Amino acid sequence: MIAPLAPPFAPLNERPGSPLYRQLYDRVLAAIAAGTLSPGDRLPSARALSKELGVARGTIELAYSLLTSEGYLLALGQKGTVVNPELQKPLASASTLPVSSKVIEDSPDALWRPPQLLPFQMGVPALDEFPRKIWARLGARYLRGMRLGDLDYPAPHGLPALRSAIASYLQVSRGIDCGAHQVFITSGWRSSLSLIAHTLLQPGERAWVEDPGYPTTRQVLRQFGIELEAVPVDADGMAVEHAIARSHAAKVVMVTPGHQSPLSMALSLPRRQLLLEWAARNNAWIVEDDYDGEYRYVSRPLPALASLDRNGRVLYAGTFSKVLFPGIRLAYLVVPQTQVAAFERVGRALFSANSPSITQTLVSEFIAEGHFTRHIQRMRRLYNERRALTIEALERSLPGGMQVERSPGGMHIVLRLPEGVSDIAMAEQLLANGMSVQPLSRWALASRPQSGLLLGFTNCATAARGEQLGALISKALS
Amino acid sequence: MIAPLAPPFAPLNERPGSPLYRQLYDRVLAAIAAGTLSPGDRLPSARALSKELGVARGTIELAYSLLTSEGYLLALGQKGTVVNPELQKPLASASTLPVSSKVIEDSPDALWRPPQLLPFQMGVPALDEFPRKIWARLGARYLRGMRLGDLDYPAPHGLPALRSAIASYLQVSRGIDCGAHQVFITSGWRSSLSLIAHTLLQPGERAWVEDPGYPTTRQVLRQFGIELEAVPVDADGMAVEHAIARSHAAKVVMVTPGHQSPLSMALSLPRRQLLLEWAARNNAWIVEDDYDGEYRYVSRPLPALASLDRNGRVLYAGTFSKVLFPGIRLAYLVVPQTQVAAFERVGRALFSANSPSITQTLVSEFIAEGHFTRHIQRMRRLYNERRALTIEALERSLPGGMQVERSPGGMHIVLRLPEGVSDIAMAEQLLANGMSVQPLSRWALASRPQSGLLLGFTNCATAARGEQLGALISKALS
Repeated sequence: MIAPLAPPFAPLNERPGSPLYRQLYDRVLAAIAAGTLSPGDRLPSARALSKELGVARGTIELAYSLLTSEGYLLALGQKGTVVNPELQKPLASASTLPVSSKVIEDSPDALWRPPQLLPFQMGVPALDEFPRKIWARLGARYLRGMRLGDLDYPAPHGLPALRSAIASYLQVSRGIDCGAHQVFITSGWRSSLSLIAHTLLQPGERAWVEDPGYPTTRQVLRQFGIELEAVPVDADGMAVEHAIARSHAAKVVMVTPGHQSPLSMALSLPRRQLLLEWAARNNAWIVEDDYDGEYRYVSRPLPALASLDRNGRVLYAGTFSKVLFPGIRLAYLVVPQTQVAAFERVGRALFSANSPSITQTLVSEFIAEGHFTRHIQRMRRLYNERRALTIEALERSLPGGMQVERSPGGMHIVLRLPEGVSDIAMAEQLLANGMSVQPLSRWALASRPQSGLLLGFTNCATAARGEQLGALISKALS
Repeated sequence: MIAPLAPPFAPLNERPGSPLYRQLYDRVLAAIAAGTLSPGDRLPSARALSKELGVARGTIELAYSLLTSEGYLLALGQKGTVVNPELQKPLASASTLPVSSKVIEDSPDALWRPPQLLPFQMGVPALDEFPRKIWARLGARYLRGMRLGDLDYPAPHGLPALRSAIASYLQVSRGIDCGAHQVFITSGWRSSLSLIAHTLLQPGERAWVEDPGYPTTRQVLRQFGIELEAVPVDADGMAVEHAIARSHAAKVVMVTPGHQSPLSMALSLPRRQLLLEWAARNNAWIVEDDYDGEYRYVSRPLPALASLDRNGRVLYAGTFSKVLFPGIRLAYLVVPQTQVAAFERVGRALFSANSPSITQTLVSEFIAEGHFTRHIQRMRRLYNERRALTIEALERSLPGGMQVERSPGGMHIVLRLPEGVSDIAMAEQLLANGMSVQPLSRWALASRPQSGLLLGFTNCATAARGEQLGALISKALS
């Protein structure tokens, strides 16, 4: 049935501080909470609702895609959008995981990389599908036409053409309103984070980091003498309200709002807004690590947290490692307008855009000629397939009762292991069988790490390999 | 006349701690000091002396080239080698400049780079002479044959083929006995120095730095909380014996033994050995910044300081910015055998070899196919010419009495300005006329900086430009 979305449809009115998409988002959530909308109920199409409410279709789609990404709605393609049938528990309890904020040391070997490419390795895109011919053509053209300036030191903050191509891309694809002068090229996430730390942070200041979260982020911050405070994540992402209530004030918040790293849920809109308001009130910085924001399978990619920032508190970090290939060593940072001068000064002193001209030029041409958008779209379809076949193969071959989490996006699957099973031992055993998975517990900062495996499905995933992996895990568990 | 080198030639005997070339070096110096060899005297040819003394010709050539680079001898090509006719003052006084060691702040704008390539810019090789066709051919071949592994993260310490090509090159060309596993790839001098600081240094420890010296070196060390102690340089390079006698003990010594940066003299052999002995006794590190060691015009390139190191105290840093082109962002570090494991651990954690696979592969093939050695030889000849025509043009156009220093190597000329003339004002005036020179005073750390201009002659140098520069300086001085 088509669910009544508070009929007769009350009109939405633009109000300061409450954009239309947010009003619609709140209304749908309220309807689900009140039981007006039940699990399985179908929502009006964006087109129909747009007509009904007299607002742009994009506004409706934005609200729907946020709700979909947060798991409240389910997009069924031609069949429309329904309230997630698996939605059982009342909304109010979504963010009530126990919180233990505390600074803990990482194990030094938190990074888990085999020396060569293996199946299920995390964070590696489909290298076999990278358009190497197009790349070789662009490269040969660049090399033939190289000018003297191409041999000189690259521009201190990155090639102007690349900065401007990135700004346009972010505007269209991630909803970030920025100019090329706000984009700073770096050679990877470490370099981006180092540039931020050099420019905005002082030793002894505090950062909130997600727990579990990306070990490299913690490692870099520690190198700068930053104190870490672990903030747990639940179904709505980083537990922002708990951190605000119970943690020491932070100078910077490290967050992965698109797909939490590594658990893959999106940061909910209320938490996004709470975090932005808190940062503005406290003059704190938010670093949005959008490492694989391009890859969502259930709906359009979420707009970036940075797109909601009205107070210039968000630093947005993107990378080409996941959408092109890791060997390119190119990433970027978008800084608030007010911080451009400071980043220019520090970036020049650090020589932070320390990437060769050839890769910067190739990427800027790859974007400008439209290959980039096409490649992302193609990979999104491909990864959706590889994700489905990996999950299906695992479900066929894993012991009954083990469930694979279906995250709305990202490049890996989280497979929880039964209580008491060591994910580290399991990962080592799988590595001995030529399969590289990461143990979830290594991403934990708090005292009681969860046991699970992180399985990359984007590179070299086949049904046969998925079954092989499932069989190996079954055998190890039995 | 052919000078009598202590005839009848006393035989040289291999003794521990005193290699043959060192014995010969000492003997020639003693002969000059005693007046047995006078300014202008011709020395026996390496071939003749090798026969006479029964030692390898290379041994003789090594001693001669050290003495030549230190200014005691002059190589006249076909005409043989003579005692430098300009050698007037007794040797004992060579190292007695007044020493003032003290920690002083850099001005923040110590780096002086115009936005585009201008004549006389320092540290820029002859970009017009870079073999772009060969480079494009290697690049196109690489791009056509790219394999999946080329798209993955580069190996943590650098591409194995590149590390091994560098080790072979250093063995042959710089006399450094090292294996590929001791070579760590980085993306520039800053990255190399950061890797050293992360691995070997602690905040609060002290570094001796040459004064004047490279501002970037000081800047990076300060970022790591290293205390700087200025050590003056004189005609024999860094005043090592004064630093040992008068300075606080250092954990690390930053030195440019090949051509002092920026004054271009070589560190004398006695000082090299004194520094090595002192470092071994005090468990201190020596960082040899061999930024342009390939470019000597009066003799063969000097062997690196690292080639004399028997106690594993020297870290040797090289770069491809000066021998290929700066836009390539590739450099390397050779670490002592005992420190390999520590550098591997830290390098992996920092992901220090953060350079794309394409540039690493191209350089390794450029070296392996012999283009590298040919290019260096070609550039050495070209730079020698450009240096000569620049000096001649300046001498034609500068006011009488102003002398251009003839350093034995490097990529720039030092032009001292008369007492009281501001080199910063002069450099700004020249920049307004489209010529980029660096003011020497910006390289100073001690209280009384010398006034002078540093003129790069390797890129876009012509006689006309030299005369134009000389005329502009003359006009400014009059």
